[in-house]
Formats: sequence, structure tokens, C-alpha cells
Amino acid sequence: MTEKKKISIVLFSGDFDKAVAAFTIASGAAAVNYEVNLFFTFWGLNVIKKYKNRNAIGRGFLARTFNFLMGGFSHLPLSRLNFAGASPKLMTNLMRKRNVATLKELIEASILLKVNFYACEMSINILGLKKEDFIPEIKEILGVAKFLNIAEKGEILFI
Amino acid sequence: MTEKKKISIVLFSGDFDKAVAAFTIASGAAAVNYEVNLFFTFWGLNVIKKYKNRNAIGRGFLARTFNFLMGGFSHLPLSRLNFAGASPKLMTNLMRKRNVATLKELIEASILLKVNFYACEMSINILGLKKEDFIPEIKEILGVAKFLNIAEKGEILFI
Amino acid sequence: MTEKKKISIVLFSGDFDKAVAAFTIASGAAAVNYEVNLFFTFWGLNVIKKYKNRNAIGRGFLARTFNFLMGGFSHLPLSRLNFAGASPKLMTNLMRKRNVATLKELIEASILLKVNFYACEMSINILGLKKEDFIPEIKEILGVAKFLNIAEKGEILFI
Repeated sequence: MTEKKKISIVLFSGDFDKAVAAFTIASGAAAVNYEVNLFFTFWGLNVIKKYKNRNAIGRGFLARTFNFLMGGFSHLPLSRLNFAGASPKLMTNLMRKRNVATLKELIEASILLKVNFYACEMSINILGLKKEDFIPEIKEILGVAKFLNIAEKGEILFI
Repeated sequence: MTEKKKISIVLFSGDFDKAVAAFTIASGAAAVNYEVNLFFTFWGLNVIKKYKNRNAIGRGFLARTFNFLMGGFSHLPLSRLNFAGASPKLMTNLMRKRNVATLKELIEASILLKVNFYACEMSINILGLKKEDFIPEIKEILGVAKFLNIAEKGEILFI
Repeated sequence: MTEKKKISIVLFSGDFDKAVAAFTIASGAAAVNYEVNLFFTFWGLNVIKKYKNRNAIGRGFLARTFNFLMGGFSHLPLSRLNFAGASPKLMTNLMRKRNVATLKELIEASILLKVNFYACEMSINILGLKKEDFIPEIKEILGVAKFLNIAEKGEILFI
């Protein structure tokens, strides 16, 4: 019996377009039977924060300021040509028009296809967040050593 | 007989400096006999768009707007310190002065060294482009599953 | 006897937050006995430039201008929400407050844990720099072929 193919993605970026790329690869790989691990860290944590929590979360003023500025899922900017948020909407419209899955649909597909979601312990500590601030699909909050262990013998992408 | 070493690069970025990095790695790896696959997606598609097509391409107004804003090969910005396009020119001058290959030369070297060029099906669909809008060296337009298949058992970089 | 696990990181970015990510992965992997290779290229060279050298280095006016603009270790910007350098300081304060290692501490830990530092020959040539402009922990200045050789059979991340 051969080992299952594996791909692990560190999603560091909180940019809309890079999140689309990460979830396209994640769901695409899971669809052809890869084990897929998504590790959210730094700005990438925005993608999996609960919507309502935009303003209030984090311990301490500094952390709250950062969290506010980071926004959440529906506030992801584009890595280029953002135009104060107009472009992500424009791109979402284009995706709908072309029958390409939107980011929301790609995330849902990834969950259905059993992509594993992990969150980075250190970033969460810095920001004073906790497990409850994220969508319930987060399997575990973990550090580098544990992540390397999970990712071992597979591909690793840093996005 | 041992399998040929393999490296696959997803070029997501359309930044001039990142394109230089991608093609430096690609041509350098091909020169020491690696199989090299370059997969152009999102902004990275700019690098391989035909020059003349700056204004007119894409189906529909939204896609045309995006394509116009994205520019083409000779309009790639720097990821930092871009100064309205002055810095890529400055860097190209530096590269010439130091006898380092310019981006154009790196792309030509990659083609000569038989680096495989692929373009991302989904991004092309979103933008309403077609194979003819790109340089003829593009071997195939394909999706995630096919790409993973090609990249299997090699290194994968996301740039 | 099994081969030692290996991870190699190309640090292309000069952003403060991405440098934190790179050194967190590097020191974390080294701590669990991975062989770790850090390859500094382009903007990433800033992280390992000697502090005092901010203004004067590089051969020729163009290179000096670039080097000045690139700054050095203590001038790394954040990849997002930089606010003229305020945010890296804010993030460093947060890291101290939460007892998370700061970038300086992560670099020191990486050195203690014997992470290998390499610098990219081509970028250094473009900028007209030399080995003496960098911290003494740089083991070697090398090109793509040599790097691939060192990274072979391990993971490669591009940050």
C-alpha cells in the first residue's frame, strides 16, 4: 500500500487573492485525494476569524488595535490594485459571472473535502486571541514543531 | 537509473523582482539538469502575456478593466519601492551594468533550457482570456489536479 | 540510520513580519533537529546586513541608492499596515508583552541552533555588495545550482 499524497499550505497572507489561491490549491488537491493541511498564521488568521468579532477581540489595547486593523474574512484586501476594497468585490463578481467558485465556496468545499485547518499558536498569542474567535472547523492550535510533524514527507507551500 | 530531479514553481505574483527570482531559479535549475515546471497564475500571467495586447483583451467590461490594470510584461512593478515604475528600470540598468541576466534574458534562457510553461485555467477563465493572448511557449492551460500530477515527487515553490 | 530531515527557506522578502515567520520556522525546525538552510536573496538581504552600513555601501550611484532605500535590519517594514514603520515597533512590543521571542531573539536562537545562513550571489552582485557588508554568520555566498544541491531531498519554502 502506498502512502497517501500530502500537501501542506502555510497561509501567512491575508490578501483576498492569495486566500483564493490557497483554497483553490487546497480544495483541488483534496478532490484528487491528497491529504491537505492548511496552517493559518499572521494575517492569514483573518480568513478564519468569526465575522461578528471585528471590533472587540484581543487582550490589551495594542492587540485590539491590530485586530481591528486586520479586519476579517469579508474585509480581505487584494495584494495589488486594491482600491479601498473595490477590487475584491469586482473579482468576486467576475468569479460568479464565469462560474468559478468564490472564496466562500472554496472554503466550504475545502471543509467538505476534509482539508485540515490548523492555526498558529504564536500569532494567536501575540494577538491575544483564543480558539473561540475562529470558525469551529479549526482542528487544533499548534506550533512549528507539531506542524512540521504533520507536514512531513509532503509538499509545503508558503503563501 | 535514478529519476530526474524536479522543481515546480507557481508564479502567482506579477511583481518584477519576484518574476526575476522565479526565472533565476527556473533557469538555474534547468541548467543543472532539473525538470522545471513554471505554472503562471493570477498576476503572474502578466509575465507571459503578449505585449501588444495591453488594452483590448478579455470578454466583458470587468475583465477588460482588470486586464488593463494588470498591464503586461513591460509594465511589471517592483514589490517594494516601485516609484511609479522607475525602480524596475533602475534594477534592469543595474543588472546590465553588473553583467547579470535581465528578466528578458532569463525568460529566453528558460525557454532554451526547456523549462515547461503552464498557465492556470481558472485565472484565465476569470479574466476571459484565451491561449492566443499568451506567448506561444505556453505548453498547456491546466487546473490544480493536473498541475499536482506534473509536480509530483518534486519540490514546489509558491512565488 | 535514517537521513536527517531538512528544510530550506529562500527569504526573498525584506518585510518584518515575513522575516519573523522565516526565523520562527527556522529556529523551530532546528530545535526539533532538522537541518535548516536559510538563503537570503533580494530584499531578504536586509535582514542580515550590518547595522552601521546603512548609507555608504555598494559600488556606483544606482546601487547605493537602492541600498539606502532598502535600509537594514532595524528598518524592516511590515508587509501590510506599515504606517511609516510604526507597526513593526508595535508588533515587537506585543511580542515582548506576550513573552514571544522578538525578531532579534529569533535570529540569535537560529544562530545558536546552527541554522545555516547563505546569501544569494546574484543579488549581491546587482547591489555591488560584498561579504563584509553582512553579519559574520553568513557561511557562504552562492548561486542557484549550489543552493539546490544543499536543499536537495528536503522541503523548500519561498518567503
